[in-house]
Amino acid sequence: MKEVNKIPRATLKRLPLYYRFVNTLKAKGEDRVNSKAISEGLNIDSATIRRDFSYFGELGKKGYGYNIDSLLEFFKSELSDSDVIKIGVVGVGHLGKALINYNFSIHDDMTITEAFDVDDDIIGTKIGDVVVKDMKDFEKIIQKDNIEVVILTTPSSVAQEITDDLVKLGIKGILNFTPKRIVTPNDVQVHQIDLGVELQSLLFFMKNYGKQS
Amino acid sequence: MKEVNKIPRATLKRLPLYYRFVNTLKAKGEDRVNSKAISEGLNIDSATIRRDFSYFGELGKKGYGYNIDSLLEFFKSELSDSDVIKIGVVGVGHLGKALINYNFSIHDDMTITEAFDVDDDIIGTKIGDVVVKDMKDFEKIIQKDNIEVVILTTPSSVAQEITDDLVKLGIKGILNFTPKRIVTPNDVQVHQIDLGVELQSLLFFMKNYGKQS
Repeated sequence: MKEVNKIPRATLKRLPLYYRFVNTLKAKGEDRVNSKAISEGLNIDSATIRRDFSYFGELGKKGYGYNIDSLLEFFKSELSDSDVIKIGVVGVGHLGKALINYNFSIHDDMTITEAFDVDDDIIGTKIGDVVVKDMKDFEKIIQKDNIEVVILTTPSSVAQEITDDLVKLGIKGILNFTPKRIVTPNDVQVHQIDLGVELQSLLFFMKNYGKQS
Repeated sequence: MKEVNKIPRATLKRLPLYYRFVNTLKAKGEDRVNSKAISEGLNIDSATIRRDFSYFGELGKKGYGYNIDSLLEFFKSELSDSDVIKIGVVGVGHLGKALINYNFSIHDDMTITEAFDVDDDIIGTKIGDVVVKDMKDFEKIIQKDNIEVVILTTPSSVAQEITDDLVKLGIKGILNFTPKRIVTPNDVQVHQIDLGVELQSLLFFMKNYGKQS
C-alpha cells in the first residue's frame, strides 16, 4: 500500500455508497456514468464527487464520465487484498444470530464463516451454514481460517476484555455492535454501530424536520 | 415548533453523541462542562462544538462552560413532544427479534411496545415483554397506542409497499434496516442502517488506514 494513495477519511465514508450506486448501474447494463448522474442519484454535490473520484485514479474523462468496469475494479481492490473476506462473529445472542443470517449482499465474497460464544447451550448449534464454536478455540480457528475482521455482539460488560484478546490474536478490524466504546491500537480499525444513537438521531430529525416549513 | 429554531442537519447528527457524553458526566456527579472537555471526549474540534451548542440556546458562559442539567433538559425536549416514545417493530425475523431484545438504553422512556408480522407461526409469540401482533391489526393498534416511530425489518422485497402503508397510517419516522432505499414524503423522516455498507466501510478503512504509516 503506497502512502501517497491514502484516501481521505471523508471520502472513504462515501465509498460504499459509490460502490453500490455504480453496481446498480452495471446491473442495468450501463458502461459509464458522469458526476452529475452520481450527484443526483446520491444527493451529494458534484464538486465533492469529482474531488472524491480524483482519488480513485485517472478514471474520469471530460464529456465521457467514468468507466463503470474500471470503477468497480478499483472499489473491489480497495476492499481487501484477498479475494475472499472471511468474517467471524463473536457473541451469538439474538443480534449475533440475526447478523449471521443477514444477507451481506453487496459483495459476493464477503461472508461470515465462523461464530463464537462461551455458552455451552449455544456452542455446537448451527445458524444458517455456520456452526457456533467455543470461544476457547478462537485463536486456533482464526489462524487456520485467516479471519481478520470480527463482528462484536457480546454483552457490553466484556466488550473491552474480548477486544484486547482479539487484538492480541491479530484481528485488524472490528464492527462493534455493543453500546460500549472500545479502545484499540491505531492499526486496528473499529466501526461502531450504536443502535440507541441511531434511534435517538431519528427522533431528533423528526422533531426538527418532521413538519413541513 | 418555531422555524427559526431549526437545528442544522450536521449538528443534529452529533446531538446523540453530545447527549450521551453529557449523560455520562451527569452520572459521574459533574454539574458543568466546557467545550474543551467535550472536544477531547468526543474527538470533535471545539469550534464545531461551540457552534453546535449555540443552537441549543444560551446555555454556555465564558469561563464557566455549560450547565449539565440545562443541557440534558434541552436534549430531552428535542427528542419528542411526548414523555414516552413508543416504537413499533414491523417484521419479526431474526433482526426484528434481536432489536426487540436489544436494550435501547440511552433514554429510559424510549421503548419498543409493539411488534408486527404476517407469519402465523410468529404472530402471538412473545419476545421479551412484547407479543407479536398480526400486521392486519397494525392500523388499530398504532392509533390506540399513538406509535409514531417504526423500526422496519421486513424483507427488502416488501419494504417500499409496507412503507407506503405506514405513511398513510401517519407514521412520521422510520428506522430502516432493510438494504432497500425507501421513498417517503418530506414530512416522514427515514434513517437507514445498512449493515452491508457499514461492513464494507470498515474494510475500506482497514485497507487505507489499517497499517501504520
